[in-house]
Amino acid sequence: MKGVVVRNIERVAPGTVAGLGNLGVATVHEAMGRIGLMAPVMRPVWRGARVAGSAVTALASPGDNWMLHVAIEQLKAGDMLVVALSSPCQDGLFGELLATSMRSRGAIGLIIDAGVRDVRELTEMGFPVWSRAIWAQGTVKETVGSVNVPVICAGARVCPGDVIVADDDGVLVVPRAIAGAALEAGKAREKKEEATRARLASGELGLDVYGMRQRLSDKGLTYVDGPVDWADPDAALRGTGKE
Amino acid sequence: MKGVVVRNIERVAPGTVAGLGNLGVATVHEAMGRIGLMAPVMRPVWRGARVAGSAVTALASPGDNWMLHVAIEQLKAGDMLVVALSSPCQDGLFGELLATSMRSRGAIGLIIDAGVRDVRELTEMGFPVWSRAIWAQGTVKETVGSVNVPVICAGARVCPGDVIVADDDGVLVVPRAIAGAALEAGKAREKKEEATRARLASGELGLDVYGMRQRLSDKGLTYVDGPVDWADPDAALRGTGKE
Amino acid sequence: MKGVVVRNIERVAPGTVAGLGNLGVATVHEAMGRIGLMAPVMRPVWRGARVAGSAVTALASPGDNWMLHVAIEQLKAGDMLVVALSSPCQDGLFGELLATSMRSRGAIGLIIDAGVRDVRELTEMGFPVWSRAIWAQGTVKETVGSVNVPVICAGARVCPGDVIVADDDGVLVVPRAIAGAALEAGKAREKKEEATRARLASGELGLDVYGMRQRLSDKGLTYVDGPVDWADPDAALRGTGKE
Amino acid sequence: MKGVVVRNIERVAPGTVAGLGNLGVATVHEAMGRIGLMAPVMRPVWRGARVAGSAVTALASPGDNWMLHVAIEQLKAGDMLVVALSSPCQDGLFGELLATSMRSRGAIGLIIDAGVRDVRELTEMGFPVWSRAIWAQGTVKETVGSVNVPVICAGARVCPGDVIVADDDGVLVVPRAIAGAALEAGKAREKKEEATRARLASGELGLDVYGMRQRLSDKGLTYVDGPVDWADPDAALRGTGKE
Amino acid sequence: MKGVVVRNIERVAPGTVAGLGNLGVATVHEAMGRIGLMAPVMRPVWRGARVAGSAVTALASPGDNWMLHVAIEQLKAGDMLVVALSSPCQDGLFGELLATSMRSRGAIGLIIDAGVRDVRELTEMGFPVWSRAIWAQGTVKETVGSVNVPVICAGARVCPGDVIVADDDGVLVVPRAIAGAALEAGKAREKKEEATRARLASGELGLDVYGMRQRLSDKGLTYVDGPVDWADPDAALRGTGKE
Amino acid sequence: MKGVVVRNIERVAPGTVAGLGNLGVATVHEAMGRIGLMAPVMRPVWRGARVAGSAVTALASPGDNWMLHVAIEQLKAGDMLVVALSSPCQDGLFGELLATSMRSRGAIGLIIDAGVRDVRELTEMGFPVWSRAIWAQGTVKETVGSVNVPVICAGARVCPGDVIVADDDGVLVVPRAIAGAALEAGKAREKKEEATRARLASGELGLDVYGMRQRLSDKGLTYVDGPVDWADPDAALRGTGKE
Repeated sequence: MKGVVVRNIERVAPGTVAGLGNLGVATVHEAMGRIGLMAPVMRPVWRGARVAGSAVTALASPGDNWMLHVAIEQLKAGDMLVVALSSPCQDGLFGELLATSMRSRGAIGLIIDAGVRDVRELTEMGFPVWSRAIWAQGTVKETVGSVNVPVICAGARVCPGDVIVADDDGVLVVPRAIAGAALEAGKAREKKEEATRARLASGELGLDVYGMRQRLSDKGLTYVDGPVDWADPDAALRGTGKE
Repeated sequence: MKGVVVRNIERVAPGTVAGLGNLGVATVHEAMGRIGLMAPVMRPVWRGARVAGSAVTALASPGDNWMLHVAIEQLKAGDMLVVALSSPCQDGLFGELLATSMRSRGAIGLIIDAGVRDVRELTEMGFPVWSRAIWAQGTVKETVGSVNVPVICAGARVCPGDVIVADDDGVLVVPRAIAGAALEAGKAREKKEEATRARLASGELGLDVYGMRQRLSDKGLTYVDGPVDWADPDAALRGTGKE
Repeated sequence: MKGVVVRNIERVAPGTVAGLGNLGVATVHEAMGRIGLMAPVMRPVWRGARVAGSAVTALASPGDNWMLHVAIEQLKAGDMLVVALSSPCQDGLFGELLATSMRSRGAIGLIIDAGVRDVRELTEMGFPVWSRAIWAQGTVKETVGSVNVPVICAGARVCPGDVIVADDDGVLVVPRAIAGAALEAGKAREKKEEATRARLASGELGLDVYGMRQRLSDKGLTYVDGPVDWADPDAALRGTGKE
Repeated sequence: MKGVVVRNIERVAPGTVAGLGNLGVATVHEAMGRIGLMAPVMRPVWRGARVAGSAVTALASPGDNWMLHVAIEQLKAGDMLVVALSSPCQDGLFGELLATSMRSRGAIGLIIDAGVRDVRELTEMGFPVWSRAIWAQGTVKETVGSVNVPVICAGARVCPGDVIVADDDGVLVVPRAIAGAALEAGKAREKKEEATRARLASGELGLDVYGMRQRLSDKGLTYVDGPVDWADPDAALRGTGKE
Repeated sequence: MKGVVVRNIERVAPGTVAGLGNLGVATVHEAMGRIGLMAPVMRPVWRGARVAGSAVTALASPGDNWMLHVAIEQLKAGDMLVVALSSPCQDGLFGELLATSMRSRGAIGLIIDAGVRDVRELTEMGFPVWSRAIWAQGTVKETVGSVNVPVICAGARVCPGDVIVADDDGVLVVPRAIAGAALEAGKAREKKEEATRARLASGELGLDVYGMRQRLSDKGLTYVDGPVDWADPDAALRGTGKE
Repeated sequence: MKGVVVRNIERVAPGTVAGLGNLGVATVHEAMGRIGLMAPVMRPVWRGARVAGSAVTALASPGDNWMLHVAIEQLKAGDMLVVALSSPCQDGLFGELLATSMRSRGAIGLIIDAGVRDVRELTEMGFPVWSRAIWAQGTVKETVGSVNVPVICAGARVCPGDVIVADDDGVLVVPRAIAGAALEAGKAREKKEEATRARLASGELGLDVYGMRQRLSDKGLTYVDGPVDWADPDAALRGTGKE
């Protein structure tokens, strides 16, 4: 499937995308059943952005950023570009000029399983980027890849049109087919968390809020009165069946 | 020793803890004889905090944050929670809700040899966290560990009640038994450094301030007048016995 | 060549150094033919600095910062100290006191293939440092190394008097002999990029600005009309010769 | 999709699987268009095996090997078990007892994006395993995952019934739909390589066998007569337009 | 505690040590409650050794192997030397000459959280070594550490006289106080595993041997009849409550 | 300097090269003053080779093995090919066919700061290779690099004609200008080690053979009579000034 550019992908409704962005990575990830995260090596170039957009995908070769130029033509307002690499790479495939081009197309962010450069300029522009590395290493334009095909980026599968949610916690892929359900589940979770937050803030313990005490005891958790002489903890626990 | 929660640990006097926090990681580490540091992979979630507290320890399993809930009940004002993992893990065991709960107990920070999430919220709350990773990956509550037993966290041994000092330089463990001595030694070191700083700032060289010249010469350090043609450094050094 | 300190190295003219600093790492790296970068593990201790200076080099041993004291004597106004290690090391070889000493000599930054500490103080001082790690681990002063000899630092060769350019994108070594040419080439590149930036900002595509369409087609890039059923991408591409 | 076991998957014809195994990882990977490789961190526990089998997939949680027991029931003669993890893990999820169980079902190997143990016994048994780590760390049986659903294992997507080819070079996934084509292409490649090998063995150069000289020259490759004084290479190249 | 050599440590009875060695790392680790393992980065220099011995510990500085010479004097027949480093190091602190010296003292192996060299000679000698790295990098003899004090080696705490068990699966620390109990528990486990192995070898499933089916069902595991069209797995699972 | 092939490099006399190969990496490295090692990530594809040869160097781009074909033409009997990469890469740039070609030219080994494949075949051929990785990932032939220019390979500088010594301990670069001196120094060291080995084998301690006791004492090493209760080591050391 190398060497293909697919035009006219299907996207999720803008309201749904925006709603997922408002919830953020951690909430939607939980609401989806704890799937869809990219690996933690993907970090924001600057802190504070929280965005969601429709994925336009690109598959590039190591040391080669040609496909980014090809992909940009396929971007529409509200899209995020997701760049996967055919083998591991930290070169700076992306910088200020490509960000300028992306922004002029209405794109709202970049996810790239490689390096980027011009990070001062990207920060000043407020253009959000999540990458594996920051490095100025230049690249060639020699090898054809693909645009808008399914890719594996930082350990997560991304299909064109999937929703990407990204913030300081990392990058999440919400498959297009379940975006609506994820939004609903996320909102429900957020609501529930609000109530929990209030109880915890007032000093209630999670042990009680979540009703954990019985199950902990059933699994063998034992309480021991201290203080214990930590120079000899085994002695201290003798008789509890825990030494 | 799995499955035990020890209550009522002994802590260091608040004044001593506060004093160690004022000195910071590098100074206390030096004053203690260059021991007690956690590995450099432990980084602050946000920059600028410098805290010290009494360690309440927890031993958790990979992918499982149950013991954090159990540990929080044992926290008192001024405590820091130190979470060790039974095997390597980057999952997000901790986030905003647990931070809210910890703060409501008076705890002042978290050290965790795993991942955390909700870092934007943690930053806004000003709740200090040092972790191995930032990642949203969710966790289960299935496996019982322990609370307030000695643990190895990021390569350092922590006993309950030890003092944790943490700042932008990393995380330091001060064993309870030597906290007072470490404070005295740290203050002495700080005082001495002030004098040294003034001399260095005025342009004096460390070579002279510390009296290093003779020993360097004894160990064979040789000075060569340049400029040297760096295209052929060996030639340049010929005759000095150093080529 | 261990145990040698070379005095009186040759430096590049201050105007040239300053010019390279204004251009920044990515631009000069490209203008030089994509060489000279240190590995991406070298990161700034704080964000926002962009500096250039003449390299004074030091070769130190792991866990030993003695040579930094020796090197500081050789620093002149506008210099940057470049510290290479004889084997991998993350210890904190450098902190606030050495920064104070360097600044009093007029030096403008540090590049070190090891760890540093006192990063809060370095940030407050505005003293720029690029390092492999942040760690408070203390060091000894036992083993003699060299100053102002060619070194390999984070994978890049540095000769004394080479120009170091460093910013948020990383660290670049510009060999002394080509500093002038690099400056000219960099200025030309910057000028050209300005024009390109304007075209991209106006919505023109890189594909057209750089005239890439014919060569992409020659290399086999094929466009397919979507939308495609991503559940079965191979089927969707059947008939294009790309399945 | 967590918590599902799919029975009765479709497999590739045994003759095709065997043929792919005979060709080995590198040849089939090339014949498929350079796709389908797992990351290089996946290494054989012992050297010398070259196998191919039909993938039965399992998705397990970190520190939890429960799903391996569930998956083994779904194995048939000639199958390979492919275990993906929901987050990074090096624990020893697999050892001699599970290998004994797999072998009694006719399974011929294991691919696991985690750790394994009992490697001496696995070696003596001649049971082939490719893993991310070797580690004895024990695991729990608490969290339900899935069997025979598509997974991402070490960066490669595996669907149940895909052909796994594995040898000392690593692990390759051949999608079921293209297994027959990959076998034909692989055989053709092998045949062609035989002829090339003979020419290279006789002393012919790849430059001539593959007809590369003109294109290298067109791209600017220049030959310079030495010997060159390597202390000053730039000087040596002066006049070639390459300095 | 730097700069101390403790003589005349207490050791576990030779028969107990030998018994633990016969059981091997994985079995004893399980029997102890899944504690005591060093990190998986510790690998044998050559495959096939399975040994157990009493730990003589040493704490060395990075790039400095002086303490190994000091430690060797404290070795007795049947001992293993355990070398921890005060900060991370891959230098070759150990080679053939030190192995010769250790062997002449009756010591039976080395565990070192650093590098070693002369690995061909170590292999020919059949001297067992587990290390973090193989590297020839030479070291100095400048900094005093300690011998026979508690250390943290590759993430595990080792006290002098603890039993070290090491084989191809890695390195395990058995605290002296529980060595006898660990041996008994290990033997019981081995016996039980023999029976399990026979059942599994005969084709019985772990699901039945361990009686897992009910608990899996209670936790929600669902079986689905295939074959499934893997191009659209979600569709295939519709109606199971698992899509 | 990209795009240049230098012909007719100068080499070290074959007898000197052979002599260095007989000594091996660790001995020559020590004899040279502990310089010249490549990073420990460079490992032999198969164990047991110990070779030395004259370096023909190549600088390649990530994901591109074109320059290997160009470099092979420059190989003469007794040469080793040293391949550096312009940025980090683990792709399989080298396999059986290139090994066949190298061998037909009389070359005796490969050092490559990237990946290789066909490792079973390389092992059967007995063709020695040291690499950063083993991976089958295929490469393109698009970007021109250089041959026989100075390169930095795995952290070490290699000039064409330098002697490469490689064995199970890693890879060493001996600059051409000092090869003769290194051989002499290495032989002297080997002779001296023979005598030391005999003394150590007879049970003499390194402390005495090397006369270390006085200097250890001067630096503060203290001996304490045990046994010590390791549950409370600080108490045990009280009074020695070492607690």
